[in-house]
Amino acid sequence: MTKWAGAGKVAALNINSMAISTFKATTTLQPGLVVRAKSRQFEVTLDEPPELGGTDTGMNPVEMILCALGACQAIVARVYAPQFNLNLEEFAMELEGDLDVDGFLGKSEVRCGFSEVRYNIRIKCDAPEEKVREFVDFISKRCPVGDTVGNAVPLALNKVIVQP
Amino acid sequence: MTKWAGAGKVAALNINSMAISTFKATTTLQPGLVVRAKSRQFEVTLDEPPELGGTDTGMNPVEMILCALGACQAIVARVYAPQFNLNLEEFAMELEGDLDVDGFLGKSEVRCGFSEVRYNIRIKCDAPEEKVREFVDFISKRCPVGDTVGNAVPLALNKVIVQP
Repeated sequence: MTKWAGAGKVAALNINSMAISTFKATTTLQPGLVVRAKSRQFEVTLDEPPELGGTDTGMNPVEMILCALGACQAIVARVYAPQFNLNLEEFAMELEGDLDVDGFLGKSEVRCGFSEVRYNIRIKCDAPEEKVREFVDFISKRCPVGDTVGNAVPLALNKVIVQP
Repeated sequence: MTKWAGAGKVAALNINSMAISTFKATTTLQPGLVVRAKSRQFEVTLDEPPELGGTDTGMNPVEMILCALGACQAIVARVYAPQFNLNLEEFAMELEGDLDVDGFLGKSEVRCGFSEVRYNIRIKCDAPEEKVREFVDFISKRCPVGDTVGNAVPLALNKVIVQP
């Protein structure tokens, strides 16, 4: 077992049931289409490429969704690999999502968001392929972002504060 | 009209219908629960806080979802403000999402992802409050990430490559 797999095992064992946790973030529009987003002490800049009207100083929000999805599956894989006796040497994903910009532009009735997200997984480990496929199936069902994107989440606008 | 609102107007006018676009990202698991995520030339590090087994070198994937949602609404607001004749001086959001970690841990049948996402919007502009509320309602319906999280997206595992 590598140090990595060991780290995953420790992680899994250390997580206690906390019932419902609330995660938070704040976002602030900057000049143009630039947005500064923060969660706890971490900050990230989002923008749009020039062909979508931005100045290309960061990935755009839908690209960030793909990053979060791939990262979440990787973390779930790391945490659960020891339970599958998998020596997870590498775990990498390629993700892509289709989005019809006409929805955003109001030019058609298509949805504004992703119509489909596809991904490939590359795993390096010494387990039989069948066992790895069983593992991949398991992590896709346990992935918080996978569930968040794959199933509807109620979005509630709580308060609008208008300042003159 | 401020320079910012002007930038939004130009952005909206410059976006041409491109029918379906495909956005892409790659993610690579690092030691522990750290993940490096890339989209085009942009890279972001994800991790978990210590209480979730990580080393806290970046926001976690569900926090990143909140950042993407807030950023997307801000960008939609900037792009559409001129059509509502809004002089958008500030647009900021606070977001929070509830997640029952027991789902991820397999300790209960609750969903693994967000059970609800709530947000507040703070807007600084000189329009009447009623008009601002109409604007907020509009952007919530035109937001690609809002639609992606608020409605189910088909997730398709395309290929699993197992390397020994």
